[in-house]
Amino acid sequence: MKIQVVGLDADDTLWHSEDGFHYVEQRFAELVGQHSPADIDVNGHLAAVERRNMPLYGYGAKAFTLSMIEAAIELTDGCVPSTTLQALIEEGRALLHRPVELLDGVHETVTSLRASGYLIVVITKGDLLHQHQKIAASGLGDLLDDVEVVNEKDEETYARIVRTLGIEPDNFAMVGNSVKSDVLPVLGIGGSAAHVPYHLLWAAEQIEHEEDIEVLESIREVPDWLKRLTG
Amino acid sequence: MKIQVVGLDADDTLWHSEDGFHYVEQRFAELVGQHSPADIDVNGHLAAVERRNMPLYGYGAKAFTLSMIEAAIELTDGCVPSTTLQALIEEGRALLHRPVELLDGVHETVTSLRASGYLIVVITKGDLLHQHQKIAASGLGDLLDDVEVVNEKDEETYARIVRTLGIEPDNFAMVGNSVKSDVLPVLGIGGSAAHVPYHLLWAAEQIEHEEDIEVLESIREVPDWLKRLTG
Repeated sequence: MKIQVVGLDADDTLWHSEDGFHYVEQRFAELVGQHSPADIDVNGHLAAVERRNMPLYGYGAKAFTLSMIEAAIELTDGCVPSTTLQALIEEGRALLHRPVELLDGVHETVTSLRASGYLIVVITKGDLLHQHQKIAASGLGDLLDDVEVVNEKDEETYARIVRTLGIEPDNFAMVGNSVKSDVLPVLGIGGSAAHVPYHLLWAAEQIEHEEDIEVLESIREVPDWLKRLTG
Repeated sequence: MKIQVVGLDADDTLWHSEDGFHYVEQRFAELVGQHSPADIDVNGHLAAVERRNMPLYGYGAKAFTLSMIEAAIELTDGCVPSTTLQALIEEGRALLHRPVELLDGVHETVTSLRASGYLIVVITKGDLLHQHQKIAASGLGDLLDDVEVVNEKDEETYARIVRTLGIEPDNFAMVGNSVKSDVLPVLGIGGSAAHVPYHLLWAAEQIEHEEDIEVLESIREVPDWLKRLTG
């Protein structure tokens, strides 16, 4: 098998992301908790509102902000002060404004993969505008052959991307921090995939699985993994 | 000049859209106006908040909903009742849930263009998830060769799309309801474009221009226009 194209997830694979959402969830609990009944799981309700809204709102910071506002109104039975809602809007905006901070080893590894002749495609869910803004701010833009912002990372999506690239699934290797989105569907279509965990994983990406999957400690291990695949 | 690819805008070119936003703006004025000082231009302020947020939020109903909430808090100096904010969230959600209603002549025209051998590409701004949901609901999906949801419809974007299609600009003709987004940038890169006005135009798309541009009364006139171009 000859890998020609390396797919890279973006959030929590190339740069920090979930830690920002995690921080805002804690702010939400502080800000809204003081106006909610003491026995309510504030963050549990926020997660439920996010899940409920996901088919309609999709992924990203705008969807998250709308869900925070809705959850805050529901949790406080409409008594949340508008200053609190404004603070939530500002926290959501801060997520969109947040500087892109690359994970350790990303720039060197992508440079080296490129130099080895692989085509590099970033494949990410999330908000179209915000994901492109982060790519632009990351300094990685010139190293990438393509950026695909998609609604779902399922077998159908990966099959379409592989087809568009004009390669076979066994010429494609994907790297990312989500077993559900970056690993299982790629294995499902006959490609290769490696899991590089981030220290936080969004609830909606958590999954039980029985498959043996390749786990790498850092993106720095990707070039050697690709050599092992080919060798 | 031989046109090979026809680009079609989506909102207000293939289906009704702006009338929905227009309706929600009127609802906003009713809902928020009763809590605002009498001398304030409620919709003028909403438009200003939308403009202010656009670089960060981009286009679409989620961005619009966030701007409505922010404008409502500002206009009422924080005194807007949470039931009003909930009503605004519901109005925004209704925009996302709204059934797709094709404009007159769209299905027949796209079918006939396809039968004449043109490749058909929808090129649209807006929210990635929502635009794909509308394509899926429109019944046009099988007639389209590609769908491009983009952040901006400027010369750079059209040049990239034409390059990706492997054609020259003079093989490309674009049809849409916005002179600013669908016509001028396409003419700017040497392509052909026709303006099919919709009865409403979003403030952010309004533009003064001196160029002579092709105006068609209905999408039904597109096949004849393409013949004249080739003629």
